Amino acid sequence: MRMRKKKHLDEKLLECKNLIDIPPVTDDYRNVIKDKEYIDFNTVFGNSNPVHMEIGCGKGQFVTEIAARNPDINYIAVEVNRNVICDACHKAQDAGLTNIVFMHCGAEILEKYIRPGFISRLYLNFSCPFPKNAYENRRLTNVRFLDIYSVILADGAEIHQKTDNMHFFEYSLEQYTLGGFKLKNISLDLHNSDFEGNIITEYEHRFSSMGMPIYRVEAYK
Amino acid sequence: MRMRKKKHLDEKLLECKNLIDIPPVTDDYRNVIKDKEYIDFNTVFGNSNPVHMEIGCGKGQFVTEIAARNPDINYIAVEVNRNVICDACHKAQDAGLTNIVFMHCGAEILEKYIRPGFISRLYLNFSCPFPKNAYENRRLTNVRFLDIYSVILADGAEIHQKTDNMHFFEYSLEQYTLGGFKLKNISLDLHNSDFEGNIITEYEHRFSSMGMPIYRVEAYK
Repeated sequence: MRMRKKKHLDEKLLECKNLIDIPPVTDDYRNVIKDKEYIDFNTVFGNSNPVHMEIGCGKGQFVTEIAARNPDINYIAVEVNRNVICDACHKAQDAGLTNIVFMHCGAEILEKYIRPGFISRLYLNFSCPFPKNAYENRRLTNVRFLDIYSVILADGAEIHQKTDNMHFFEYSLEQYTLGGFKLKNISLDLHNSDFEGNIITEYEHRFSSMGMPIYRVEAYK
Repeated sequence: MRMRKKKHLDEKLLECKNLIDIPPVTDDYRNVIKDKEYIDFNTVFGNSNPVHMEIGCGKGQFVTEIAARNPDINYIAVEVNRNVICDACHKAQDAGLTNIVFMHCGAEILEKYIRPGFISRLYLNFSCPFPKNAYENRRLTNVRFLDIYSVILADGAEIHQKTDNMHFFEYSLEQYTLGGFKLKNISLDLHNSDFEGNIITEYEHRFSSMGMPIYRVEAYK
């Protein structure tokens, strides 16, 4: 069964015209990122509009909605999980969105493919709050990742983060300051704040409807 | 009646041996702070122990308790309200605490009296969360105050802040980053966290018992 599922997934991935072809990482990623292979995204998108990125796009609900609302912005959606990125690619394709491309990789190797200062905004939506003690360095707001974002983000570009996890949010705020970021528009209860234009994902709706607050912050240099 | 109350207060203040004599500010404070009149606190305390400060000590519940717990640390408690600082002075005096002195002044003029780098820790407990729109610059975490704290705090000294006011806490975190501070040990629900040694003030107990979370942060440079 597992084999058939994988074969089916491979076929579905081949149908994704919006998926950037990135070879799997077989070496230590620190070796992999040494030689840069910057992707010419202006050619990929066919224009030089500003480029925003979401890391951990999951099944693509957020990125397809925000891309549909903002046709003059290009979106790069990054996801490490093959199953869900396949769904996300098809969702964007089915919606006829030409301003999203997908990258199937971990955030560790983005420096290899993204030109320094190329990204105008970064979204981190409900990133996995790996347990702090054992897997802190996998958290997407760990300062080792913030240092990577600092390279690929343009001057003044913002990271927009949302999460339902209180301790992960506390941690993220601290890490931003360690990574030299300033903070603004912090909301400790987004759905009862005056923030407008929020795109509520399925995940966000589920947690919010259980009465749990949603946390949000914008970090910038 | 008002006169009699004032006379009574003046008499009570005269009895406070632990109240530093500071002339009332009659000029623009920016002129007042130009000429420094550093107080020799080592002589005041009779030793050279580390000095911690609380700004906005109210009736002194927090500072008397923490001073009693830490006889090897000296405390300067600052309060702008004459009525409550009088109560605080008497509370410390009645408890026989010799490691607290009080300053009746606003935080704006601390630079005049406190030598740069002299304070090893600053406490801001349940500071008044003045409305952001009209009185933002009165908030004790406004960056204009943070710049003053930066002068009087020693290298690596921490600001420990607690509040029950969510929007004031959001604001304070942002201001710290504007003022060049880093953040650690953020707690968005202090009483349900693993933080130990918390000194619960009457005010804190009241709000917490109403089911409201207490927010806490440590800011440092």
